Amino acid sequence: MSLATLDATQHPYLPAVSATLFKAKATKALSFEQIAQHIGRNEVAAAAIFYGQAKPSAEDIEKLSSLLDIPLDILNEQLSGFPDRGRSVEMPPKEPLIYRLYEIVQNYGYAYKAVLNEKFGDGIMSAISFSTKVEKETDSDGNNWAVITLRGKWLPFSRF
Amino acid sequence: MSLATLDATQHPYLPAVSATLFKAKATKALSFEQIAQHIGRNEVAAAAIFYGQAKPSAEDIEKLSSLLDIPLDILNEQLSGFPDRGRSVEMPPKEPLIYRLYEIVQNYGYAYKAVLNEKFGDGIMSAISFSTKVEKETDSDGNNWAVITLRGKWLPFSRF
Amino acid sequence: MSLATLDATQHPYLPAVSATLFKAKATKALSFEQIAQHIGRNEVAAAAIFYGQAKPSAEDIEKLSSLLDIPLDILNEQLSGFPDRGRSVEMPPKEPLIYRLYEIVQNYGYAYKAVLNEKFGDGIMSAISFSTKVEKETDSDGNNWAVITLRGKWLPFSRF
Amino acid sequence: MSLATLDATQHPYLPAVSATLFKAKATKALSFEQIAQHIGRNEVAAAAIFYGQAKPSAEDIEKLSSLLDIPLDILNEQLSGFPDRGRSVEMPPKEPLIYRLYEIVQNYGYAYKAVLNEKFGDGIMSAISFSTKVEKETDSDGNNWAVITLRGKWLPFSRF
Amino acid sequence: MSLATLDATQHPYLPAVSATLFKAKATKALSFEQIAQHIGRNEVAAAAIFYGQAKPSAEDIEKLSSLLDIPLDILNEQLSGFPDRGRSVEMPPKEPLIYRLYEIVQNYGYAYKAVLNEKFGDGIMSAISFSTKVEKETDSDGNNWAVITLRGKWLPFSRF
Amino acid sequence: MSLATLDATQHPYLPAVSATLFKAKATKALSFEQIAQHIGRNEVAAAAIFYGQAKPSAEDIEKLSSLLDIPLDILNEQLSGFPDRGRSVEMPPKEPLIYRLYEIVQNYGYAYKAVLNEKFGDGIMSAISFSTKVEKETDSDGNNWAVITLRGKWLPFSRF
Amino acid sequence: MSLATLDATQHPYLPAVSATLFKAKATKALSFEQIAQHIGRNEVAAAAIFYGQAKPSAEDIEKLSSLLDIPLDILNEQLSGFPDRGRSVEMPPKEPLIYRLYEIVQNYGYAYKAVLNEKFGDGIMSAISFSTKVEKETDSDGNNWAVITLRGKWLPFSRF
Amino acid sequence: MSLATLDATQHPYLPAVSATLFKAKATKALSFEQIAQHIGRNEVAAAAIFYGQAKPSAEDIEKLSSLLDIPLDILNEQLSGFPDRGRSVEMPPKEPLIYRLYEIVQNYGYAYKAVLNEKFGDGIMSAISFSTKVEKETDSDGNNWAVITLRGKWLPFSRF
Amino acid sequence: MSLATLDATQHPYLPAVSATLFKAKATKALSFEQIAQHIGRNEVAAAAIFYGQAKPSAEDIEKLSSLLDIPLDILNEQLSGFPDRGRSVEMPPKEPLIYRLYEIVQNYGYAYKAVLNEKFGDGIMSAISFSTKVEKETDSDGNNWAVITLRGKWLPFSRF
Amino acid sequence: MSLATLDATQHPYLPAVSATLFKAKATKALSFEQIAQHIGRNEVAAAAIFYGQAKPSAEDIEKLSSLLDIPLDILNEQLSGFPDRGRSVEMPPKEPLIYRLYEIVQNYGYAYKAVLNEKFGDGIMSAISFSTKVEKETDSDGNNWAVITLRGKWLPFSRF
Repeated sequence: MSLATLDATQHPYLPAVSATLFKAKATKALSFEQIAQHIGRNEVAAAAIFYGQAKPSAEDIEKLSSLLDIPLDILNEQLSGFPDRGRSVEMPPKEPLIYRLYEIVQNYGYAYKAVLNEKFGDGIMSAISFSTKVEKETDSDGNNWAVITLRGKWLPFSRF
Repeated sequence: MSLATLDATQHPYLPAVSATLFKAKATKALSFEQIAQHIGRNEVAAAAIFYGQAKPSAEDIEKLSSLLDIPLDILNEQLSGFPDRGRSVEMPPKEPLIYRLYEIVQNYGYAYKAVLNEKFGDGIMSAISFSTKVEKETDSDGNNWAVITLRGKWLPFSRF
Repeated sequence: MSLATLDATQHPYLPAVSATLFKAKATKALSFEQIAQHIGRNEVAAAAIFYGQAKPSAEDIEKLSSLLDIPLDILNEQLSGFPDRGRSVEMPPKEPLIYRLYEIVQNYGYAYKAVLNEKFGDGIMSAISFSTKVEKETDSDGNNWAVITLRGKWLPFSRF
Repeated sequence: MSLATLDATQHPYLPAVSATLFKAKATKALSFEQIAQHIGRNEVAAAAIFYGQAKPSAEDIEKLSSLLDIPLDILNEQLSGFPDRGRSVEMPPKEPLIYRLYEIVQNYGYAYKAVLNEKFGDGIMSAISFSTKVEKETDSDGNNWAVITLRGKWLPFSRF
Repeated sequence: MSLATLDATQHPYLPAVSATLFKAKATKALSFEQIAQHIGRNEVAAAAIFYGQAKPSAEDIEKLSSLLDIPLDILNEQLSGFPDRGRSVEMPPKEPLIYRLYEIVQNYGYAYKAVLNEKFGDGIMSAISFSTKVEKETDSDGNNWAVITLRGKWLPFSRF
Repeated sequence: MSLATLDATQHPYLPAVSATLFKAKATKALSFEQIAQHIGRNEVAAAAIFYGQAKPSAEDIEKLSSLLDIPLDILNEQLSGFPDRGRSVEMPPKEPLIYRLYEIVQNYGYAYKAVLNEKFGDGIMSAISFSTKVEKETDSDGNNWAVITLRGKWLPFSRF
Repeated sequence: MSLATLDATQHPYLPAVSATLFKAKATKALSFEQIAQHIGRNEVAAAAIFYGQAKPSAEDIEKLSSLLDIPLDILNEQLSGFPDRGRSVEMPPKEPLIYRLYEIVQNYGYAYKAVLNEKFGDGIMSAISFSTKVEKETDSDGNNWAVITLRGKWLPFSRF
Repeated sequence: MSLATLDATQHPYLPAVSATLFKAKATKALSFEQIAQHIGRNEVAAAAIFYGQAKPSAEDIEKLSSLLDIPLDILNEQLSGFPDRGRSVEMPPKEPLIYRLYEIVQNYGYAYKAVLNEKFGDGIMSAISFSTKVEKETDSDGNNWAVITLRGKWLPFSRF
Repeated sequence: MSLATLDATQHPYLPAVSATLFKAKATKALSFEQIAQHIGRNEVAAAAIFYGQAKPSAEDIEKLSSLLDIPLDILNEQLSGFPDRGRSVEMPPKEPLIYRLYEIVQNYGYAYKAVLNEKFGDGIMSAISFSTKVEKETDSDGNNWAVITLRGKWLPFSRF
Repeated sequence: MSLATLDATQHPYLPAVSATLFKAKATKALSFEQIAQHIGRNEVAAAAIFYGQAKPSAEDIEKLSSLLDIPLDILNEQLSGFPDRGRSVEMPPKEPLIYRLYEIVQNYGYAYKAVLNEKFGDGIMSAISFSTKVEKETDSDGNNWAVITLRGKWLPFSRF
């Protein structure tokens, strides 16, 4: 089985910690599923930490340090600040897998808005008070299906 | 309760059928949930038909015609071709609700890719052999949560 | 004193209600301050309704109808849906006044982020659970100063 | 508590002084609030100096040198010129916190203009003769609110 | 001698008053020099009014009305609001004459900044507290030279 | 008084000579006014040489070499070719001072064109057979004004 | 033989005179070669007048009026101003023939610059004091070759 | 007389051979005219080789090696592949000389197309089966004129 | 079976003939396969004529006129000029089917170039001396496969 | 015969393995045809591996290691992850050969869609369940023709 790796030359705007974490992950030959289980978080959240898109807690950092054999002070230093999110994917995405997600937004964006507005009123689904997960299903014909769930708090526009 | 409407002057690139359908929807005061139930499809799919992003079957058209009191020949003519998808949302989206979906792709795109690749191998989640739905949850504190599910067939890259 | 008006040919993507409201405003010679007082909302919110960027309540619509002498059924029809926000300003803004606000974001964006993160932790200031106001100050030298206040709920990133 | 840091590889267009200052800030474990108090400036202004968006006075530099233990001649050399503003945020901003500010300009830009023009006449709010501050409020439900104040001199267009 | 005219189909985003004014100007066969003299303003300012880039005073409107034989109420209505500046030139400019001005900014922008900063300190030359004029010179060889003068108030960045 | 400097990391596309010249300028603590006087050129032209936007003569190079204590052969080598103009300012400019100049072109571009065409006929003001200067004025209230003069040869379009 | 025509719906930004001229050209079934001979100008210049990219003289207008049977006053009115050049081709060009010219600039731009600088010094080839022509050659194998000649005055950069 | 040089830091996307060739050209103090004569090619083609926009023959490489005193194996290695054309000029070009060529395409593109279509039918002038040259003319008033000739094979669209 | 239609409001930049042809096609209920057979051309070429991307011969026009019952003079007038190609697809394409073709170019572009260069030398595959076709295959599992063939003349770069 | 090479400075976003593979290919003087035969894959697929656009199997890696004399562990490490596709060609492509493919999509995109929709119904041709090949033909006049075949599985849009 192959594991996701990082070719840092292709991602010059990722934080320094991304190279640190991915290098250790490759050495330890760990999947995100294994890493996520170890730190008690969802595997998308685990991967997001690796790409500099989520902030780990102090406890997460300790667990990552021990699991990946990265000195704690290095991890602490590289992860001490706040994520500068949004720098991993250049939009529109060129990567075919990520483009498909972008295309879903492009094609169904207003359909989602219409259905959500009718269900919830005037507001948005938060991308901050938000969680997501990825699941694998196999149908009776043996075809695999990917299922991505997005769950965000509904925020109504304030009246002022 | 408010219903989603279309201000056609704001969407000059939508097909003619969008104005036809939304005008009838407003007159009949029907929600997408009601329309979807009537035609036996998901409400996101129903809204996608209204925005010219999905192709209804002949039977769908008949049901829409009777539910919305639109002459069948008009609907047949305006819906006879194949959708020219992607013209409803101008990217990057300016609409805050749609932007939040775009932001999820921007922030978590590579995390999804890493997790999906490790789970399925080299390939993509199809946006064509694909379905989606929107659900509403209310937690114990009375907060509402929107849940969007994306389900796509996994397509491995061909070897050639 | 001059009043803000709308030259609809310059704003082809605003909703139909913008032309309706601005025309009546010009005829009645009312300022946004007067309109806001009448409907009991902030004047920025009142102007946002005129530009199709905020959703008025049923009561707001009634008050606008009577104040501006616009038949209620016309206003109800044109305001019945959900705002398709973001279509009034083309970014980057060409208008000098609006550009200055854009420039503040461009120059101080990371400074705001750093200070907010240190004060509140990892999260964002909501632009949805949000209010804003404009005030005028005159200093002892007779110079006028514009004061814009932005107040948004702090949303911490969810842990998942 | 976490402190804002700088991952210089993510910000290749910031001036050399940004790396110098942020590195010392991390070593000293100082917040912008502490730094601002020490140099007698607003904390947004202090952060703006760190991001190369504001010019410190000679006295500011001396105080920063002593507080952060950076040799004065290094700071003087790196801060001797005039800021080349605007290079910290790439527009449209990808960072969610900064995007929310951008979205406020996008959605409310013309509403601000209308209200300001009616209050002040034809002109702009200066972003140069300008100050700003960030405050934290906690409401009775324990929710935190961020309050950003923008205060700029009103400049009427000259008649010529 | 030819006079500047407006082909309104080429400028769909100019305000309605532009067509009104330019049509009358063509009928009366007046140059901007003549118009400017009549209203007591600089000819660039006069042209800027025609392109919707400057706000005329009540007295200016009366003089334009009488000089151009446009009913005063029409002019008053079309000019009653505040200019929505920046919509006449699409950047980068395609027009060769305007491109040359753009090119001057592109080539000499930092040279101007360096010289201005050394002469005035940290700040900007205002484009609001600003006037400009165009002059014609003929040298001893009979060559014509255009001289454009830009005069703006120096605004130092506020300390806060 | 502060002097203009160059943070070369912020200007990766400037020629190598820019770093050479600015470093020597900082060491010698010379203003562009002093440098310009020494080489007998306008200070904007002097700054343009530093930013790689103008070609110095052999004599200019000698004078720069002696004034700035840069070995003549180094300057000769770095300045031997032809300027690759336009690489200093990325358009639209993010720098507030330079943006104001850009905004003047954006707002008044067609007004300049109209006035110039009426004064000179069909043609352009050259940006090549061109000179420019910056002056400082102080009005009776003690306000400073920057005056930028652009003087270009008028080039009529050829008839063919 | 086919003649060049204009489908005005494809060129919404061309001036009104383009539709007038092309319609008459189609009715009269005249080629640009014939039109050019009649008015004594190069056929590229003749076509440029039709696309609103060149200003005809009073005599040109008279000859076009008589050749194309367009009332003189209509032509005079539609051609009385100054061309607003650059609005015919949207860059980068999508049209394959025009793209090839664009590609030549893209590929050989610096080669032209290097050769021209070495031949003429520091300056540019004017696109204003400029003429161009198109010729057809047939080689001994019966292949046709298009030859485009660009001839512009050399303008050295002024010393100031 | 000055010679064209390359400041490699300004052209990070040129191939390695560009730096090799330009450095040797500067050392040998050779013009493109001299180099072109030596290898028996047009000087634009010679310069295009230097900028990585044309593929030299084996014999060209040998002659360049001997003329420029570059070891043959180095040149062979750096020139062994196929040019990756189009990376020298970033479009739209910022360089004034190259911009003028771009402007000619922008202004006269459709005029060229119309004249070429009428002369040759439906097709394009090839930019591949193509040659070009630069000539210098001096008129009776002592003015210099640059003449650029573009000669491309006419390719009719295939019928299928 | 559904037939391809045109919603002209979605394609404002297509020529007038597109609406004429598609309307008649819908009325006659003809597929592009049937139309292509009738005029003796490939069905992609037939569709390209409908989208204004290919020039029909006089005989093609006659056959289209009789097959589609469109008066010959109308077709002759609307098809008399030369196609203004490239205006049907806005790049990057938003339509999912067309995007997939774009993605193939994006992903395999350099692989094609490398293989073609090694097989043919330095040059390009012409898109003008070019034909294409679409075929349908069904494999033993009942899956359908689309096969698109691109066949273009190889054009070597000229030596000059 | 020349072989395709990689000038890594021109492709900063390609993965590290691209430089490794191309360097060995140049040393071994192998064509993609030879490499493809050795690993039993199509030559476009072989080249795609070199450009980081396809994932080789474990067996492919072993064969590449032995053919190219690259230590297996280096290749395994550099090729262990999943391709980050789409980073080789910057769109729109500047390279003339690749641009021609892009132009085919731009010109014939809707024609392909119309023909495919009529043949297959509502769906897309997959670019993932996809293979492609390049062939060379020589016609009776000795002209070479490149033939590119694209073969993708037809994916109908799901009904939901």
